[in-house]
Amino acid sequence: MREIVERVRQRTSIPIYERKVENILSALCTSNDPWKIADLSEEPFPLVMAVINVLSEKGYVKLNEGIELTKKGKELLKEFRITSKKDFTCKHCKGKTVDLDEFKDLLRRFTEIAKDRPEPKHEFDQAYVTPETTVARVVFMHSRGDVENKEIFVLGDDDLTSVALMLSKLPKKISVLDIDSRLTRFIERVAEKLGCTNVEILTFDLRKPLPEEFSKKFDTFITDPPETIDAIRAFIGRGIAMLKGPGCAGYFGLTKMESSVDKWQKIQRILIEEFQVVITDIIRNFNEYVNWDYIQQTRGWKLVPVKSVPEYNWYKSYFFRIQTVESSKGYKEEVTANQELYDDDESSTT
Amino acid sequence: MREIVERVRQRTSIPIYERKVENILSALCTSNDPWKIADLSEEPFPLVMAVINVLSEKGYVKLNEGIELTKKGKELLKEFRITSKKDFTCKHCKGKTVDLDEFKDLLRRFTEIAKDRPEPKHEFDQAYVTPETTVARVVFMHSRGDVENKEIFVLGDDDLTSVALMLSKLPKKISVLDIDSRLTRFIERVAEKLGCTNVEILTFDLRKPLPEEFSKKFDTFITDPPETIDAIRAFIGRGIAMLKGPGCAGYFGLTKMESSVDKWQKIQRILIEEFQVVITDIIRNFNEYVNWDYIQQTRGWKLVPVKSVPEYNWYKSYFFRIQTVESSKGYKEEVTANQELYDDDESSTT
Repeated sequence: MREIVERVRQRTSIPIYERKVENILSALCTSNDPWKIADLSEEPFPLVMAVINVLSEKGYVKLNEGIELTKKGKELLKEFRITSKKDFTCKHCKGKTVDLDEFKDLLRRFTEIAKDRPEPKHEFDQAYVTPETTVARVVFMHSRGDVENKEIFVLGDDDLTSVALMLSKLPKKISVLDIDSRLTRFIERVAEKLGCTNVEILTFDLRKPLPEEFSKKFDTFITDPPETIDAIRAFIGRGIAMLKGPGCAGYFGLTKMESSVDKWQKIQRILIEEFQVVITDIIRNFNEYVNWDYIQQTRGWKLVPVKSVPEYNWYKSYFFRIQTVESSKGYKEEVTANQELYDDDESSTT
Repeated sequence: MREIVERVRQRTSIPIYERKVENILSALCTSNDPWKIADLSEEPFPLVMAVINVLSEKGYVKLNEGIELTKKGKELLKEFRITSKKDFTCKHCKGKTVDLDEFKDLLRRFTEIAKDRPEPKHEFDQAYVTPETTVARVVFMHSRGDVENKEIFVLGDDDLTSVALMLSKLPKKISVLDIDSRLTRFIERVAEKLGCTNVEILTFDLRKPLPEEFSKKFDTFITDPPETIDAIRAFIGRGIAMLKGPGCAGYFGLTKMESSVDKWQKIQRILIEEFQVVITDIIRNFNEYVNWDYIQQTRGWKLVPVKSVPEYNWYKSYFFRIQTVESSKGYKEEVTANQELYDDDESSTT
C-alpha cells in the first residue's frame, strides 16, 4: 500500500495518503466504470486516474472495457479489509432532505421551460443540474426562510435557479448575473413571458468588481463557482459583499471530484477566517449535473484510461448554506486570472 | 423593530439583531407553544424567551396558555412581510438523508435493549436521542465508510451508539468512555449478553487527558458534547487526537437551541483553524432527543413564561461529520472547568 502511495505521489501534486487509495479501491470493488469509480471514491478525478494507472502497472487492475480488479487486486482488498461502497441514500428525497411533493407543478413547468435552454459551453465551464435539483434548491432555500419576500442574487445561472424562483412567485426581487449573453437573453425572455417585473438581469464577468449599487442590497445569494481558490473567493466573496447584514444566507455547490478534501480545508478557511461566515448546512450529492456534450474535449477525458462516455449523471456536488454574523465580510477586489480561474491541478471538466 | 432589538440587547449577552427577531416572529406566526417556537426559530432558548418577554411588554404578544400574537403583533408581521415557518422535510427519512429500511431488524433489537437504559442525569447534562436517531447515525457513518472494519471511539455514550454499533457487527473494535458508571456498566452488560469481545469500556471524566495508549489508535470517533467552547474543544479535540491520521472521521451534534450562530462561528474557527479538520457534512435536526425528566429543574424552565411541559420531542441537533487532513491536530490538555463545562449564557438544559 505504501508503495502505491509513493508512486502516485511522484506523479501528482494532489495530496495522497493511504486512506485515499483505500477509497478508490473500495469504489473499484463496487464498479468497473471509471466515471462511477470517481463518483463513489469521492476523490479528485485526476487522482483517481493516477491511482488506477499505478494499480494497473502493478497488476492489481486490468484495463479492458472497464477497470477490473485482478486476483492480486482482490487479495490486496482482503489484506486491508476493504469492502465495497455502501449506499443507503433515502430513495424518496435522494438524500436532499426536502420533499418536492408540494412543488410538482412548479417542477413540471420548470422542466417545460428549460427544454429550450442554451446548451453548456466549455469556454465558461458550464454544466447544468437536473430540473429536480434546481427545484429542490429553491425548496431547500425556502425551508430556511431565504426565499419568501426576500431579495435574491443569482451569480451565474446556467442552472436557471432564477427561473425556478420566478415560477415560485415567492421572492420580492431576483437579480441575475451571467457572463454568457445566451443565458441572460434566455432568462430575460422567460421573465417577459411569465410577466415577472421583479427580475433584474445583467451580462457580467464576475472577475470584475460588482457595481457598487449592488452592495448590501440582498438577503440571499446563490452561486455555483468553478472550483479554483480564486474563483471560490471571487464568486462567494462577492455574494457575501452583496448581503444586507448579519443573518443573511448564501448557497453554493462544491464537488469532491474537482476539489480534494485538502482543497476543501483551504476553502473552509476562506469561509470561516477570511469571510467570517458560518456554515449551517452541507448536503452530500444534493446537486446532480446532466452530462454535458463537451466531455470528450475535457482534461478528464484525456486522463481516463478506458474511453467510454458516462452512462448516468455521475457528476455531483455537495450543497452548502452559509450564514452571515456581525463580523462577516465579503470580497470586492478584481480577479486577474484568465483560464486559471477555471483550472487547477484538481480540475477535470475544463 | 430596532426598538425591540435594543431592549433585548440590554438584557442578554447573546448577540441580537433584526433577523433574529424576525426568525422568532416567524416561529410565533406558526405556533403558540414556547418549546415549538424555540425549535422553529432556531435561536438560543434564553434569547427566544428574552424576545418574547419584550414582545409581551410592548403588547405584540399575550401570554395566556400559550404565547399568542396580538392584533398589534400581527400588524408588525405584515409591516415586515414576515410569514410562517415552512417545513418541507422529507417524510421518509425525516431529513436524515439515509434510509433505515435495511436496518429494521437492528432498530427493533436496539429499541428492545435500550428499554432498560439508565435515565438521563441532570448532573452530567444527559439527554438521549431516539432509537431511530442512534440507528440512523450508524447507517450514516456506515455509508461514509467509517464503520465497517474500523476502530471506533465513542466519547460519552448516553445515546448508546456503541450498542447499535455492536448490533451491526461491522466495526473491528469499539471503545466507549463515559463519566457515568451506570452507563458503562449497562453497556458492559449488553456487550457480554451479545458476546461482543471487541468492545472496550471505561468510566472516565473527559476533562482529564486521555491515557496515551489511546493516541492515534482509531479510524472514527463520535461524541455529543455539552455546547460550551471548553467542552467542544475537550470532547472533539480529544476525539481528533485519537485518530490514526489523515482521512479519518469524527461525528458530533450541535444545536441551535444552546448555541447561537455566533457561537457556531467560534466553534467552526476551532475546527478549521485550530484543529485544521474539514467539515464534510452538516445535517439539520438529524438528532432528535427524547424529552428528559428533569426539565422542570433546568434554566430553560425558569425562563419560559408559560409553564407547560413539552408535548413532543422539541430538542434537536445538527449532525456534523469532520474529516482529518495531513495538518490536522487534536487537543490533549486538561480542562479545569467544573460546572462551566456545561454552562454558558446560551445554555438552557443545564
